Amino acid sequence: MSVRYGRVCIIGVGLIGGSLARALKAAQACDEIVGVGRDADHLRRAVELGVVDRIETDMAKGLEGAELAVVAVPVGRMGEVFRQMAPHLQARTIVTDVGSTKASVVKAALEVFGAVPPRFVPGHPIAGTERSGVEASFAELYRDRRVILTPLPETESDAVEAVKAMWEAAGALVETMDVVHHDEVLAATSHLPHVLAFSLVHALARMDEKVEIFKYAAGGFRDFTRIASSDATMWHDICLANREAILKTLAYFTSDLAALADAIEQGDGEYIRQVFARAKEARDNFCNL
Amino acid sequence: MSVRYGRVCIIGVGLIGGSLARALKAAQACDEIVGVGRDADHLRRAVELGVVDRIETDMAKGLEGAELAVVAVPVGRMGEVFRQMAPHLQARTIVTDVGSTKASVVKAALEVFGAVPPRFVPGHPIAGTERSGVEASFAELYRDRRVILTPLPETESDAVEAVKAMWEAAGALVETMDVVHHDEVLAATSHLPHVLAFSLVHALARMDEKVEIFKYAAGGFRDFTRIASSDATMWHDICLANREAILKTLAYFTSDLAALADAIEQGDGEYIRQVFARAKEARDNFCNL
Repeated sequence: MSVRYGRVCIIGVGLIGGSLARALKAAQACDEIVGVGRDADHLRRAVELGVVDRIETDMAKGLEGAELAVVAVPVGRMGEVFRQMAPHLQARTIVTDVGSTKASVVKAALEVFGAVPPRFVPGHPIAGTERSGVEASFAELYRDRRVILTPLPETESDAVEAVKAMWEAAGALVETMDVVHHDEVLAATSHLPHVLAFSLVHALARMDEKVEIFKYAAGGFRDFTRIASSDATMWHDICLANREAILKTLAYFTSDLAALADAIEQGDGEYIRQVFARAKEARDNFCNL
Repeated sequence: MSVRYGRVCIIGVGLIGGSLARALKAAQACDEIVGVGRDADHLRRAVELGVVDRIETDMAKGLEGAELAVVAVPVGRMGEVFRQMAPHLQARTIVTDVGSTKASVVKAALEVFGAVPPRFVPGHPIAGTERSGVEASFAELYRDRRVILTPLPETESDAVEAVKAMWEAAGALVETMDVVHHDEVLAATSHLPHVLAFSLVHALARMDEKVEIFKYAAGGFRDFTRIASSDATMWHDICLANREAILKTLAYFTSDLAALADAIEQGDGEYIRQVFARAKEARDNFCNL
């Protein structure tokens, strides 16, 4: 299936928005991409890099004539951007977002628009790197990655199809899921690991031996802590936006960890071995999915 | 500095022992490498792959005429191997090991030999992958990696120099450190991260949504959990061998994590942002070391 849009407006041209713009251009999936943002210097850089065709710091001008608008700002800024969009949004414009948490984004839309607009399709591309900014963007970021759309009962199905087609043009595998389920699954596979990585590096950095600790860190530690180099503000937003699901999965994890710590303390080798063997088996399996 | 040994005996020809054998051969650092192990089929595979020159399942024959013996078995098997070695070890043979914990290995040597042999140099190459076995071995594993030697006051300095030269021939950067300090540093940078990764994957695998959880795991989760694909028995051994240091650093981490969980629950955005920002800064810095 091939798809071609007229004007696409991308609000927030960082790693996520910029990579989407690059992918849509590479796929010749639209006539024009307009980048919208607060920072004119940053936007100019996006034009210089060939990421977007045109830039606007004014939301009204940015949204004008857009068939599709993609909100690619941190989760904590969604409400503010929706408020800027509200007076200028044309009824037929399809809107989607890329937020890592979906209940909070739906809630923000509800608050700003009074009801969730029927042509707003909440979405989440499960892709990214620990880097951020338009300089880090690349067209292949979404290739073979999953994108989850979480339409509501009132969402118009042609809008869902249009957003699906956009992500498929960028090379992604698109699925739909319930908002709450999305937030639970992502709390487990993404948000909790980030919390653990940030917390571990934070704890170790405070230890007296910190210079030596990091000096002797090997490849395993670097892989394990890579996500602790992610953008602090973005992850702060996610933690607050998906608070309940994160706390639930964190409690589940800490109880498992406490049982393991007990086993280490008691010298219960059989328990330790079983936990490690089951984890290894699960990890080897899901990496072959 | 160039070095050449006569016969080197490597006891345990897996990823670590096999990679050392390959590296020494590639550097033409010895005349002959004898691989010693329990499993004749496994040892034959090591010969077929060209990893060692000769194999022995009999310890007496394996140690005969060896200038240097490297014990490359899991930490939990060190004592058993030392007992096999004791009756056949020649006084001038230099012995070293590759165990990830050093106090436990020194203790095992003390128990078997009555006193730690003056030509035994405890050592730990900080290198490895999540794979194991001789098939996973490669000559470049130790290139530019650190090796920590933890000689005791009674260790003969020429033995320390000889082991240092061996690792340098394999491309490693060698340092010496106190046994206790080694175990504390490694508990923080290696053992604790493994415990966390195993525990996280174990916890998630038990959750109802397990198929979907892993299906939606992205690159960050794969990196974060890579070490949970490590050998379960080896890590079981390490947890028991370095129990105290691991529990100490684990308690330190869990208190930091609990404070972060409180902040998430209370919506204390400033605290969350600070923890994440400090972690990101520390991680970005140590990756440039």
